Amino acid sequence: MLRFAQFGAGRIGAIHAANLAAMPNAQLLHIVDVNAAAAKTLADRHGARVATVAEVFADRNVDAVIIASSTDTHADLAIAAARAGKAIFCEKPIDLSLKRVDACLAAVKKAKVPMFVGFNRRFDPSFSSLHARIGRGDIGNVEQVIISSRDPGLPPISYLKVSGGQLRDMTIHDFDMARWLLGEEPHELFAYGSCLVDPAVKAIGDTDSVMIVMKTPSGRLCHINNCRRASYGYDQRLEVHGSKGRLMAGNRTATTVELADASAVTGDKPLYFFLERYADAYRAELSAFVDAVESRKPMPVGAEDGRQAIVLAEAAVKSLKTGRPVKL
Amino acid sequence: MLRFAQFGAGRIGAIHAANLAAMPNAQLLHIVDVNAAAAKTLADRHGARVATVAEVFADRNVDAVIIASSTDTHADLAIAAARAGKAIFCEKPIDLSLKRVDACLAAVKKAKVPMFVGFNRRFDPSFSSLHARIGRGDIGNVEQVIISSRDPGLPPISYLKVSGGQLRDMTIHDFDMARWLLGEEPHELFAYGSCLVDPAVKAIGDTDSVMIVMKTPSGRLCHINNCRRASYGYDQRLEVHGSKGRLMAGNRTATTVELADASAVTGDKPLYFFLERYADAYRAELSAFVDAVESRKPMPVGAEDGRQAIVLAEAAVKSLKTGRPVKL
Amino acid sequence: MLRFAQFGAGRIGAIHAANLAAMPNAQLLHIVDVNAAAAKTLADRHGARVATVAEVFADRNVDAVIIASSTDTHADLAIAAARAGKAIFCEKPIDLSLKRVDACLAAVKKAKVPMFVGFNRRFDPSFSSLHARIGRGDIGNVEQVIISSRDPGLPPISYLKVSGGQLRDMTIHDFDMARWLLGEEPHELFAYGSCLVDPAVKAIGDTDSVMIVMKTPSGRLCHINNCRRASYGYDQRLEVHGSKGRLMAGNRTATTVELADASAVTGDKPLYFFLERYADAYRAELSAFVDAVESRKPMPVGAEDGRQAIVLAEAAVKSLKTGRPVKL
Amino acid sequence: MLRFAQFGAGRIGAIHAANLAAMPNAQLLHIVDVNAAAAKTLADRHGARVATVAEVFADRNVDAVIIASSTDTHADLAIAAARAGKAIFCEKPIDLSLKRVDACLAAVKKAKVPMFVGFNRRFDPSFSSLHARIGRGDIGNVEQVIISSRDPGLPPISYLKVSGGQLRDMTIHDFDMARWLLGEEPHELFAYGSCLVDPAVKAIGDTDSVMIVMKTPSGRLCHINNCRRASYGYDQRLEVHGSKGRLMAGNRTATTVELADASAVTGDKPLYFFLERYADAYRAELSAFVDAVESRKPMPVGAEDGRQAIVLAEAAVKSLKTGRPVKL
Repeated sequence: MLRFAQFGAGRIGAIHAANLAAMPNAQLLHIVDVNAAAAKTLADRHGARVATVAEVFADRNVDAVIIASSTDTHADLAIAAARAGKAIFCEKPIDLSLKRVDACLAAVKKAKVPMFVGFNRRFDPSFSSLHARIGRGDIGNVEQVIISSRDPGLPPISYLKVSGGQLRDMTIHDFDMARWLLGEEPHELFAYGSCLVDPAVKAIGDTDSVMIVMKTPSGRLCHINNCRRASYGYDQRLEVHGSKGRLMAGNRTATTVELADASAVTGDKPLYFFLERYADAYRAELSAFVDAVESRKPMPVGAEDGRQAIVLAEAAVKSLKTGRPVKL
Repeated sequence: MLRFAQFGAGRIGAIHAANLAAMPNAQLLHIVDVNAAAAKTLADRHGARVATVAEVFADRNVDAVIIASSTDTHADLAIAAARAGKAIFCEKPIDLSLKRVDACLAAVKKAKVPMFVGFNRRFDPSFSSLHARIGRGDIGNVEQVIISSRDPGLPPISYLKVSGGQLRDMTIHDFDMARWLLGEEPHELFAYGSCLVDPAVKAIGDTDSVMIVMKTPSGRLCHINNCRRASYGYDQRLEVHGSKGRLMAGNRTATTVELADASAVTGDKPLYFFLERYADAYRAELSAFVDAVESRKPMPVGAEDGRQAIVLAEAAVKSLKTGRPVKL
Repeated sequence: MLRFAQFGAGRIGAIHAANLAAMPNAQLLHIVDVNAAAAKTLADRHGARVATVAEVFADRNVDAVIIASSTDTHADLAIAAARAGKAIFCEKPIDLSLKRVDACLAAVKKAKVPMFVGFNRRFDPSFSSLHARIGRGDIGNVEQVIISSRDPGLPPISYLKVSGGQLRDMTIHDFDMARWLLGEEPHELFAYGSCLVDPAVKAIGDTDSVMIVMKTPSGRLCHINNCRRASYGYDQRLEVHGSKGRLMAGNRTATTVELADASAVTGDKPLYFFLERYADAYRAELSAFVDAVESRKPMPVGAEDGRQAIVLAEAAVKSLKTGRPVKL
Repeated sequence: MLRFAQFGAGRIGAIHAANLAAMPNAQLLHIVDVNAAAAKTLADRHGARVATVAEVFADRNVDAVIIASSTDTHADLAIAAARAGKAIFCEKPIDLSLKRVDACLAAVKKAKVPMFVGFNRRFDPSFSSLHARIGRGDIGNVEQVIISSRDPGLPPISYLKVSGGQLRDMTIHDFDMARWLLGEEPHELFAYGSCLVDPAVKAIGDTDSVMIVMKTPSGRLCHINNCRRASYGYDQRLEVHGSKGRLMAGNRTATTVELADASAVTGDKPLYFFLERYADAYRAELSAFVDAVESRKPMPVGAEDGRQAIVLAEAAVKSLKTGRPVKL
């Protein structure tokens, strides 16, 4: 039985808390949030208590922490958790600054605590099956990876201002997918970015539409396309070409209902957004974390993975700024 | 908050208990099962206590019962529950004998308790969406309904012997689908049955493969095909033709992964069996029951629906025996 | 080089003539039609000459005839062709009367000429592939066959009056499919018919919607559903269940274009009608006829197949009239 | 009636000649090929005569020429045809050297003859429908285009040596697609190339796998991925994202047959290669050429389109060499 404290009682926090509550081998002891009402509501729902940061780290009963608070608090909480000897489940990104990420990783390494970074997509049933089938040799050697990742709608500009920009906030998931699927670290990338959805995005110096290409030392190629708005819902697809074949994983729909009438044959749109599409993935990643901690196995997605995704995002930002490819 | 006792701690009982446990407005007080160990395990898992039938009906705190015990106990438990004034959630079928079904319905009617019959498929997200879209007029007037319903594998002969036969045990779900989708009661049906999967089925006087056609007073037509064995998994599909179009609902798969290689393009088989395919439906039907009881609204699937499905099954049995169409 | 005369310069005649013209090992010599203008237009288009029936049968250069004239002329022309020693490609049905069909078959048998009946669907690339895969053992033993066959729209009532009725005019194709796929002759069938599309159909004593079930001696089951109107186009699908799996063949679309927008994901309707859907099949059947005549091999669809489909149609008509299953 | 001479009696020449032969408003007079036997075979098949280049240009009866000979002859023949006042249907590319392309375009412009460049993919039914729907506003403003184009297998190295390289020989089609779909000329591109299929390709200084990104002045983005080998067949897909939705066009299969068995659900691979996939497109492009010449309308794909695709290919070659984005 792994006993948890959780930082953050927002949208993602509510998901993790509910998933913990349904796990037979985990228990949620404390909820911490600057929003006292949100903390209380979530704590009450799952039989936990509201606590302060200090109380959490002082409590010897706490084996592990979930860091699902705002991005700027991730690194400090992870460092404190490491020092307190708690296993860490940290929402992505660890931090928007690589320097602070490195400080965090150093603390974690020194404390020898396990740290998991919440790249939930690796646990999507379709994506994890596709990845396993690459490993099984279904398509031979990986040659090209194409990642399509498009959000249903532009977040508020107020959010975008503090998001770190599209590449650090949104594409970071796809950088992790790229590394995971390529089976090799990219050593160079090139990025194009545009503002096509809303001029307000341009006004704050951000992009809403990007296309990236990456290359690995052995010549494997990867393409990522992103847009902050897809009118038809959350578009999350993978395509991997290998020497023996192609694996694809597509979107899911709420139903399989199909209407044929005088105008067309019509089916469901993809599931609306990450809460719907990745519900299974959120459950599976937390379960994988608990299992790895309990069995003292390596983290399936570790702190170094969190770092590398940020390294790629930084490189893409630099490529956008300079208009040139960036070596890693 | 609706407080429950549950009869039956087997496979289906475990599902209902877990679904109850996850509902905010329901509570499981008692578990009853002739298998004491199974009852204890399930009770412990969800913080309920093991009880006897008598204790359940004597407990004023029990608002509702879930009858998920063996088929031959359904009617007696439902009658006792009705007399005790408990709301009833009864697994299908109410009974294999129409006479006993009628006795049960009389008791329920007299006691004026709500009774729900567990035709879970009405609550499958795809099937319920398809049904709602018929109601919304997407295909105009319903004209023809085609129901494909095939199980992954033959159950043990020992089960088949007490099952009431394929038409009462398996097709009964499809008879309910037919009534629900046709929007009119069939007034005649004709059935062909064969034993193609295993001669042992024939030896006990049962069928493993059936095809049925039905007709309603206004001329709407319905076809049902069943088989006890589909090597590719649980095949559950609906097809409804109307004056303005066609609605179809198909199978679901575990993943969307597709492999293209030198031999073919290959995707997942359908989900294996009812536990996988109808997991959402089991959740939704119980939730619908609780909501209907709490809001004193009519049961979405009532005792009369349970009876009518059996009436159709009986007619199909008669058609098989006589080799003639049977009027209802 | 096989030299042809063709009876009929209508819609189907135009297709056969064009397909002949494109074949390297066939030549079209004569066109015969009561409509002189139509005959001349078609003859001119393909370098043939307009001829009379007598001229055709007197011409020793004519090796084979295509009978694509009106249904009531098929049997007489086939008998005359047999007597003249010409190979016969006859559009379905041979005749609406089984007695005349038998007379025709007797003449053909006596003359020992090859006769092909134009069940074009056997030559649809998807259907013929499906059939071949049954033969290859992909699904083990055939157990159940489901045939969906729906026309885009009701023909004129004037046509329906002389059509022989839905079962003889439309379902006859599906009876041929059923025999072909079941791999055994059905020995009993039962039919329901309704008039749901247009009351004018009922007024002339016909149906526009039918559902049929059939059984073979070994217990194989088959279902056919038909409707004279499918708002979404020509719906032609096969589904065959065997001991080891399921084969399905669906509709084709003009394009693979799919639109995803705020309302839905939308694709093409099926191809509009038989001219579009079965264009390849018309080409392939004529080619198969020529090849079989030239190589003196058995006809891939022979006169007996034409007869058996009519036998089934007659039985279905009788079942509709009597309300009872009919043995064959 | 447009009267043609055709240069080239090879694989593509055979297709064009057969398509011409089936057109009611076109006639093939002459076939020219350095391979006399091939010329004679093709001429005989379609009732044309074998001629020399000089004879063709001297023949006043020739209205138009099809240039389907080897790539290095395209420009000279087009220039000669222009001077002789013949309408020109020229296989892509006009030439591998931009300088010679420009010389050719100057001659065509001076002679005021219509010139069509054979970018057949614009005439694929799915691709042309997708393009038309962009024009109709189905997805609002185009924002991102993704082009997947993969050949079934590596051509002989001897061919690759004279092909001009993957970007000029293979990607050129995709550059044309990109321009056509973006609705704006790209003003910058970046290319990665690798040799992953066969080291022999590297040995001749070519690539077999490329990924390209492009940008237009208004910020529209485009990605192209290519591989010389796709084990599952010819992979030709388009995906266009706009402000209101997404349009996709996929591969076609020989049949719609699907097998479900104990291992998976399996369908056909894509059609094998361009001869199969683009059979309709070859017919449609020639028909469009004839129609445009006869009605004196602008060429649907003109000489300038041929030039621009080469400009993009040259830029991509430069990007590969320099490792930098290239402005246009």
